[in-house]
Amino acid sequence: MEFVVDHERFHRVITQVSSVVSSRTTIPILSGIKIKAEEDRLIVVGSNSEVVLVKEIPLHSEGKKVLEVKQRGEIVLGTRYLSPLVKKLSEDISFSVQHHVAHIRSGDVKTRLSGMNPDDYPNLPELRQEQAVTVDGKAFNEMLQQTVFAASTNQSRPLLTGVHFSYSNDHLKAVATNSHRLSMRHTETNAGGEGNCTVPASSLVTLSKLINKQSGELSLYIDEHFISFSQGSTTLYSRLLEGTYPNVSSLIPNESKLTISLDTKKLYEAVDRACLFASDWRHNNIRMRLKDDSELSISSRTDEMGDISEKQVVTKVSGDAELDLYVDGQFLKEALAFMDDEETLLSFGGAMRPIVIKPKSHSSYIQLISPVRSY
Amino acid sequence: MEFVVDHERFHRVITQVSSVVSSRTTIPILSGIKIKAEEDRLIVVGSNSEVVLVKEIPLHSEGKKVLEVKQRGEIVLGTRYLSPLVKKLSEDISFSVQHHVAHIRSGDVKTRLSGMNPDDYPNLPELRQEQAVTVDGKAFNEMLQQTVFAASTNQSRPLLTGVHFSYSNDHLKAVATNSHRLSMRHTETNAGGEGNCTVPASSLVTLSKLINKQSGELSLYIDEHFISFSQGSTTLYSRLLEGTYPNVSSLIPNESKLTISLDTKKLYEAVDRACLFASDWRHNNIRMRLKDDSELSISSRTDEMGDISEKQVVTKVSGDAELDLYVDGQFLKEALAFMDDEETLLSFGGAMRPIVIKPKSHSSYIQLISPVRSY
Repeated sequence: MEFVVDHERFHRVITQVSSVVSSRTTIPILSGIKIKAEEDRLIVVGSNSEVVLVKEIPLHSEGKKVLEVKQRGEIVLGTRYLSPLVKKLSEDISFSVQHHVAHIRSGDVKTRLSGMNPDDYPNLPELRQEQAVTVDGKAFNEMLQQTVFAASTNQSRPLLTGVHFSYSNDHLKAVATNSHRLSMRHTETNAGGEGNCTVPASSLVTLSKLINKQSGELSLYIDEHFISFSQGSTTLYSRLLEGTYPNVSSLIPNESKLTISLDTKKLYEAVDRACLFASDWRHNNIRMRLKDDSELSISSRTDEMGDISEKQVVTKVSGDAELDLYVDGQFLKEALAFMDDEETLLSFGGAMRPIVIKPKSHSSYIQLISPVRSY
Repeated sequence: MEFVVDHERFHRVITQVSSVVSSRTTIPILSGIKIKAEEDRLIVVGSNSEVVLVKEIPLHSEGKKVLEVKQRGEIVLGTRYLSPLVKKLSEDISFSVQHHVAHIRSGDVKTRLSGMNPDDYPNLPELRQEQAVTVDGKAFNEMLQQTVFAASTNQSRPLLTGVHFSYSNDHLKAVATNSHRLSMRHTETNAGGEGNCTVPASSLVTLSKLINKQSGELSLYIDEHFISFSQGSTTLYSRLLEGTYPNVSSLIPNESKLTISLDTKKLYEAVDRACLFASDWRHNNIRMRLKDDSELSISSRTDEMGDISEKQVVTKVSGDAELDLYVDGQFLKEALAFMDDEETLLSFGGAMRPIVIKPKSHSSYIQLISPVRSY
């Protein structure tokens, strides 16, 4: 095995692939990354118990030669030395392997690194390639930002620690809930058939760091136990969560007693401030009260330290109910953090009915938060 | 007590003062910061067991009114709420205190914060004001960068965990050592008399974050148990380490068997790379060998994982000895990190004599590192 690779490109790939590798794995070979030189490309693979990341370096990129493969082969190298070493080099890297030892040269620097047998490295999941769903990379990344946070962190119901995707025809839906709040986002796709799966939220956090947010389609392949996400020279495989995801569509209220409209940024800032004092209190509660149909008072208090209150200008959209309830401030803050509209609609259906949170200008994003009892 | 203060200025001061306050203090009042309104200024005080930080806000600053004091008074407020609260506000802050409760208003936001009795807050150290040493802020900051790292972190010899300052006439000297390496820096001052003291390195780390590096003189007042550093509206008090600092001047070799000159940045990068493999090895050792009087080979290895070696171009300045020794790579790297010259001189006096490291262009900075035995 022997190749010469552009330093900057190799560094970027090694850094990304190393980022999924855990140094605390109990399977020694998984503490390394696999580097495989084929005739026309370099394939770099890293994995943990949840995901496998595969990055490729072609011979040419952006009109520039970035790779020359002199002899094919493969090796597995521990990330602990490889990753910081590559970072500290500055010239093109010449890489050769003999007897599972990598000889790495860059300018005047000569290094030898002991490797592991690539035959011991696990095979990639094999997915049927016909069932692809393609979606715009930027739209999909927004979809992740707007749903992943709402998944449960409690392992007692493992399915809820994931985001549920379902597609049919030209339509992709993502939903996440921890049973106290829910977030659902729709987007367009060119899926042919229909299907669904539940992906661990942690895999999607990894994915969102890898997606090119500016451009490029993302292709999803879904199998019984795995999903893969491909964009350009990057492929991420994730295991799926098994089981039947609850039917959440029925939870979304059809009608409301009161709907108000508020400035998204100002509301976010007010809730953020109120959360300061809510952190000590049970369930992070903040109190929302509508006054004179035109002002929303947002307040919170800690028993010992103090209190905070402020007012927000609101426009009543419909309904005529009183409003005085307590809500988990952290949930409300997260619900507003990725709201993609300057105006947000809040709808209320009564004392213990979920609050519906939507952008004013479109209907492809909806969130629910259950109010909490005041004690 | 009642005042109105510019939000941005108050935020900056509260953030800086809060940074020295430890939330884990066993003395409750020290978890707070004292805010005192005088007729013509606001005084904000925070402290921990090592330092006391005092920041002042005047009525006017940079031609702008930043403070209006309506009624004098003082209060102590816990940083846990105050500091994030002030950060999240955005308009001028109106602040009033009744019965040890602070009422804080900013725009539409109203907050109450319970405070503590300011009479319980410790008094500031009183220092004789006549014995001032003044020094350029930028030069003093460089002096700290070039010495603090060399202090010991081992509490078995407490004096060595500090930096020793001594001044006489127009001359200020700082020295730090952990007994395996030493760093000494000289600078100019306008001290009248002479004196010396040893300041905990941790206090100096705090100080270096507060110094205006661009401009402004720094005044030092030294007493038996305390030192104060004043610059503009900031004063930091630190306790001193007690005892007689060892006489280190005698450690500096007067002659060498070999002196070589190297490019500082290239040498730093080579040592940094060699440290990668040295980290596993006893004492972080890297090996330095002079070849043909014109090349310095720098190498390191770990028994299991691999090795690295590279060459540096050197100019021999004087002497004719062989050079093949082991040195703690981390010490050498730190010695080079703040070297203020493009060329560095290394002088060697024999197998187990300290290596002398100096900038090529001036003599106000000198460092020693003891070589280690090779096993």
